[in-house]
Amino acid sequence: MSFAALLLVDIWLTGGDGSGDNSLPVKTKLRLDCSWFITLQLISRIPELGIKKPFTEVIRANIGDAQAMGQQPITFLRQVMALCTYPNLLDSPSFPEDAKKRARRLLQACGGNSLGSYSASQGVNCIREDVAAYITRRDGGVPADPDNIYLTTGASDGISTILKILVSGGGKSRTGVMIPIPQYPLYSAVISELDAIQVNYYLDEENCWALNVNELRRAVQEAKDHCDPKVLCIINPGNPTGQVQSRKCIEDVIHFAWEEKLFLMADEVYQDNVYSPDCKFHSFKKVLYEMGPEYSSNVELASFHSTSKGYMGECGYRGGYMEVINLHPEIKGQLVKLLSVRLCPPVSGQAAMDIVVNPPVPGEESFELFHREKESVLGNLAKKAKLTEDLFNQVPGIHCNPLQGAMYAFPRIFIPSKAVEAAQAHKMAPDMFYCMKLLEETGICVVPGSGFGQREGTYHFRMTILPPVEKLKTVLQKVKDFHIKFLEKYA
Amino acid sequence: MSFAALLLVDIWLTGGDGSGDNSLPVKTKLRLDCSWFITLQLISRIPELGIKKPFTEVIRANIGDAQAMGQQPITFLRQVMALCTYPNLLDSPSFPEDAKKRARRLLQACGGNSLGSYSASQGVNCIREDVAAYITRRDGGVPADPDNIYLTTGASDGISTILKILVSGGGKSRTGVMIPIPQYPLYSAVISELDAIQVNYYLDEENCWALNVNELRRAVQEAKDHCDPKVLCIINPGNPTGQVQSRKCIEDVIHFAWEEKLFLMADEVYQDNVYSPDCKFHSFKKVLYEMGPEYSSNVELASFHSTSKGYMGECGYRGGYMEVINLHPEIKGQLVKLLSVRLCPPVSGQAAMDIVVNPPVPGEESFELFHREKESVLGNLAKKAKLTEDLFNQVPGIHCNPLQGAMYAFPRIFIPSKAVEAAQAHKMAPDMFYCMKLLEETGICVVPGSGFGQREGTYHFRMTILPPVEKLKTVLQKVKDFHIKFLEKYA
Repeated sequence: MSFAALLLVDIWLTGGDGSGDNSLPVKTKLRLDCSWFITLQLISRIPELGIKKPFTEVIRANIGDAQAMGQQPITFLRQVMALCTYPNLLDSPSFPEDAKKRARRLLQACGGNSLGSYSASQGVNCIREDVAAYITRRDGGVPADPDNIYLTTGASDGISTILKILVSGGGKSRTGVMIPIPQYPLYSAVISELDAIQVNYYLDEENCWALNVNELRRAVQEAKDHCDPKVLCIINPGNPTGQVQSRKCIEDVIHFAWEEKLFLMADEVYQDNVYSPDCKFHSFKKVLYEMGPEYSSNVELASFHSTSKGYMGECGYRGGYMEVINLHPEIKGQLVKLLSVRLCPPVSGQAAMDIVVNPPVPGEESFELFHREKESVLGNLAKKAKLTEDLFNQVPGIHCNPLQGAMYAFPRIFIPSKAVEAAQAHKMAPDMFYCMKLLEETGICVVPGSGFGQREGTYHFRMTILPPVEKLKTVLQKVKDFHIKFLEKYA
Repeated sequence: MSFAALLLVDIWLTGGDGSGDNSLPVKTKLRLDCSWFITLQLISRIPELGIKKPFTEVIRANIGDAQAMGQQPITFLRQVMALCTYPNLLDSPSFPEDAKKRARRLLQACGGNSLGSYSASQGVNCIREDVAAYITRRDGGVPADPDNIYLTTGASDGISTILKILVSGGGKSRTGVMIPIPQYPLYSAVISELDAIQVNYYLDEENCWALNVNELRRAVQEAKDHCDPKVLCIINPGNPTGQVQSRKCIEDVIHFAWEEKLFLMADEVYQDNVYSPDCKFHSFKKVLYEMGPEYSSNVELASFHSTSKGYMGECGYRGGYMEVINLHPEIKGQLVKLLSVRLCPPVSGQAAMDIVVNPPVPGEESFELFHREKESVLGNLAKKAKLTEDLFNQVPGIHCNPLQGAMYAFPRIFIPSKAVEAAQAHKMAPDMFYCMKLLEETGICVVPGSGFGQREGTYHFRMTILPPVEKLKTVLQKVKDFHIKFLEKYA
């Protein structure tokens, strides 16, 4: 099977606009779109297929997988994990005392003092307490209740679980779920899996991908004709768009959710990834409480976090948590039951989450190294965010908004009409055609904007900024050269 | 909240016969029954509630969680995991070379040589190869293809994923899923979650819980009136019933599935847990191939395995795999897409699965210790299986079939009519009433048979045989004393 044909498989499998694929002989009702990971899987097969290409290395800039791009794990986190995994090491002089202290505490909270036991479905108690303490610190004292914390298998699991308990009804009363466009395709995939109704609201590209409440109003009004909009999903900092919402904007969104009685889902997995000096991460929970009891006692909110992003990039452990506020007690009972069907999230992932929310503090033996490692990762990401924005904006036919946060660039690309025609001849979305050519010619794998959704007639791609600085510079230069050649070819 | 009231919460939440709970003010369509884990969670709260009880310790004999009951992890498995977690240890002289070799190989197969990277959604390639090699060895040379192996988040994840892609249709064409009664409640929960139709077939208690193909025929014929039976689930060795299917019986089941064009789901997570000298584990895959190409090229089969049971009992890592055979290629594409939505199974759980399928072999440094630890766990379980059967059968009003495999006793208990009336007065199933009394008076937590399903008018409970031998003897003595007192009280 040729490389191009392999990619074509992906294209056929990819809906891209949330509408999924209806062409399969359907034994199943599933209609899913999730392009980027399939792309990744196909690409990972290239070496086996022995395809000769004009590049020496495939650069997987398609997925936010920091350690796969060479980022080193945080030493303290892995030390605690190793101690928990093989407690004989608790006697070893080569591990610092503060790591041992954390490990002993975690093991004591596990059945049989082992990561190998099931935890409660909601997660290990002391880890939920640590998460609540972290949220309280993060939010300047706004209290968090461990009872509202649920540990999850990455954030994805939390997001799909919450959607599962919220979606109901049929026909015009089917649950509508509002998601940003562009969005992270987990949302459209789960909405499709649950046969819920996807309600798009568009982020404002001209205004640095800001969320405009008037656009939310438009979307909800139009949706009411054909579904029952009940859920509003926000991704802040944005994926793939990288914007960081202002406090004012968050207030407006909360007020809107309160007015419309919408359940707010705040995907805040990039809360540590803010780079623009003018931007600050504000949690929805904090703003909600600061808006007073009329809001904080009524607006239902679930907020999601993960071990996979931030400065730790521990994707493989599938650690995460959600904090759920103002959920009806009986729905809460259903939530616990639903979680208990799968028994419990991976306990090693729970332990990783604990280190993230309960890192070394000044005065502890490991603090200095931890702090240095963390600041190095975040400092580098900030540098690469600026570098990427600057370099893309030097290329004719590419425009890139500032990367205020998260770990992606989502530049707008100009695709000449002759290239659009060529794509159509291949039955491909124009930006998929573009990304495929880029991959074939440079080995750089990025995800077409149609995988995330975009305003009709505009084209984008998502590229991570995770490669090390020097490699990222090479990548950007290659994209630039490719783009100029592409413009010439289809002029 | 009183202890009894807490348990009552559980009872309200528990359907028990697969019909779930319809009494909630439903914002959600979910109807779930999964009693045992909720019970566990409530029980785990007892210490916090400061309830004084006539026992000093709650014994959680309700869930197959070996390490929580004191079973020690397999040293080699944890050594490899620790090395993978914190690769600095690869230089440590205190780890054996064969463990280091395994760890290096696993890390080389991971992105960035780290457990912290995402793997392919289907799982790490070399681990899938090891699983295929294991299956081939296990099945005496019947080949297994790594392309048919999918690593999962425990077996539960695999089972629910396969059901998700198989269930479709509406009304009378809605997918029917045949499950044994008694069953492991994951099945009824997922069927209910997917709004599929549960089709019960009853195991033959009088015949050591054997599966009788005539009963399958009866069940499928009756089901055809109101749904489209497409899936047949088998649990072998049985949970909660502990029977081990004969080769002849498996052949009959495969022939039946072939006749009726049913997708076979073989839950084989207890494949290492066979105790009766007359019994042997036969995999569905092996028997299918030995029946010839008419069967092996046509019958669709998914088989599930896990790190949670066997001799290793690594529940917390949520490792597992499934082998899927004869799946339509396009459905396979959908399966990969569905899996990719959640990115990947926990990579640490995948690594744990690798050690299970690729343990030390004779001649390797760690073989002797590994072998001793494995045989010790399995030998003890065999002893406890016999002990439990014998002791239960000495109690008047309790009858217990031989525990041929798995890790549970599922004795039938006689509940006097006065106790049935007392239960009804408390709006409880009689066996729930019994189990609650047992827990209140002895601290022993077992799961009522109604959580698994049972023939009407019969009562059972499920108890694990995981406590250490001496503790198990005490537990059995306490159950005996309780039962005799219970019979006297309600005579």
